[in-house]
Amino acid sequence: MRNICMVVSYDGTGYYGFQTQPGHNTIQDKIEAAILSLTGETVKIISSGRTDAGVHAYGQVFNFATHSSIPLERWSLALNTRLPKDIVIRSAREVPPDFHARRSAKRKTYRYTINANQFPDVFHRHFQFHHPTKLDVEEMRKALAHVVGTYDYTSFASRKSTKASHVRTIYEAWIEQDLSGAVPGTRDQGVLHTYMTGNGFLHNMVRIIMGTLLRVGQGKLGSEEIPRILAAKDRSAAGPTAVAHGLALWDVAYDFDSVER
Amino acid sequence: MRNICMVVSYDGTGYYGFQTQPGHNTIQDKIEAAILSLTGETVKIISSGRTDAGVHAYGQVFNFATHSSIPLERWSLALNTRLPKDIVIRSAREVPPDFHARRSAKRKTYRYTINANQFPDVFHRHFQFHHPTKLDVEEMRKALAHVVGTYDYTSFASRKSTKASHVRTIYEAWIEQDLSGAVPGTRDQGVLHTYMTGNGFLHNMVRIIMGTLLRVGQGKLGSEEIPRILAAKDRSAAGPTAVAHGLALWDVAYDFDSVER
Repeated sequence: MRNICMVVSYDGTGYYGFQTQPGHNTIQDKIEAAILSLTGETVKIISSGRTDAGVHAYGQVFNFATHSSIPLERWSLALNTRLPKDIVIRSAREVPPDFHARRSAKRKTYRYTINANQFPDVFHRHFQFHHPTKLDVEEMRKALAHVVGTYDYTSFASRKSTKASHVRTIYEAWIEQDLSGAVPGTRDQGVLHTYMTGNGFLHNMVRIIMGTLLRVGQGKLGSEEIPRILAAKDRSAAGPTAVAHGLALWDVAYDFDSVER
Repeated sequence: MRNICMVVSYDGTGYYGFQTQPGHNTIQDKIEAAILSLTGETVKIISSGRTDAGVHAYGQVFNFATHSSIPLERWSLALNTRLPKDIVIRSAREVPPDFHARRSAKRKTYRYTINANQFPDVFHRHFQFHHPTKLDVEEMRKALAHVVGTYDYTSFASRKSTKASHVRTIYEAWIEQDLSGAVPGTRDQGVLHTYMTGNGFLHNMVRIIMGTLLRVGQGKLGSEEIPRILAAKDRSAAGPTAVAHGLALWDVAYDFDSVER
């Protein structure tokens, strides 16, 4: 058996999330159907983690076991011709038998995009939350800095979370402000890409942090309140869950150098 | 009567072009329906020119006459709330009675986008022609330089063109190569944005120039052949018509400074 690991991009707009759900259209179903079409094998792929309905991915990672002898360099193209155009395999590599896309992941990076210009960007509308009114970006940066570290993130996790521990580490987080589409002399504040890199994220964690950051940007919450919200370990202490379509799983990092290639 | 001029962006994917066509879904229809909903007036908008089915616009311009007294600053938002999300009014201004979006236009700029990376970009797939095999970008630049000037562009016009004259001027044309999404060590050549600015363009002219440029990039045609193709004044001398979805009407320029504001 070979263990194949792939990086995949997808536009989550039309899907009920990554993971197979009875009666729903999911990205996992599409990928498994493409593998079946190519190899004749019914496989279960293992992802680095599910993404929710409407959430996108630039660099989701999954692996699966196969008896196929198709050369590595042919896999991506062969699957892409069998996949809908909103799912694109970007690379394939062979990994050791014990590689597991979720358990072997060292860090994950998410990106949340807010269009803070007056008018929506028609070309990126499926990938940006449009927020046309004033945001205090510096206060948002201060608030974001407070979530970096090792904490119990219960306040920023869905109440549905069933994880034994809500302690995670966010290694770094930053906001890139792209003013290229902003019209000078208007209230346009550009496009804000917020990146968060951590060792793992609880269900809805990035979206709840973003919903809280938006309240800070709107002046409804002070950035200095974030430590208190973290300490509360209570979902009701934080802001609302930001809409799904601004979110993308950006990158998943592995310690490939320590495993045999 | 007021004469209102607007700039509009649209994702042309779902439309049968800009201009009203019996039995088809068009951008003009959607805008006129939004104006009717807002003002109660049935208007005919005048665009800077039609765009074909599947072609996009960043800065299409149109004008229309209205009795409405709605303040200028409210028009864009009021129409956007009545338009589908793939059409966005970006600005509104009041113009003199003799302003005509097509006849008053001084120059138009189109952009054609080729994704020359190995794999398609799932987030921009509706706005890029994906060409994963090798392109000689320098030869394409040389070929493009040959179409700049004042020429009879019959070779680069649809045979359906009914214009009395096929003489137009392309003021400038250039290719921007964006390597940010290219994977190092692969055949990825980045994203090629080709811009052309002229005093007017014949039907399919940008797409036929691009189809010819692609043949040059593929090594099937030398860049030095372009003057011969122009001189032939024969559509069959040029390359094929490149696909619609790579094209966007980028900008229309007017001599607003010379008209009363």
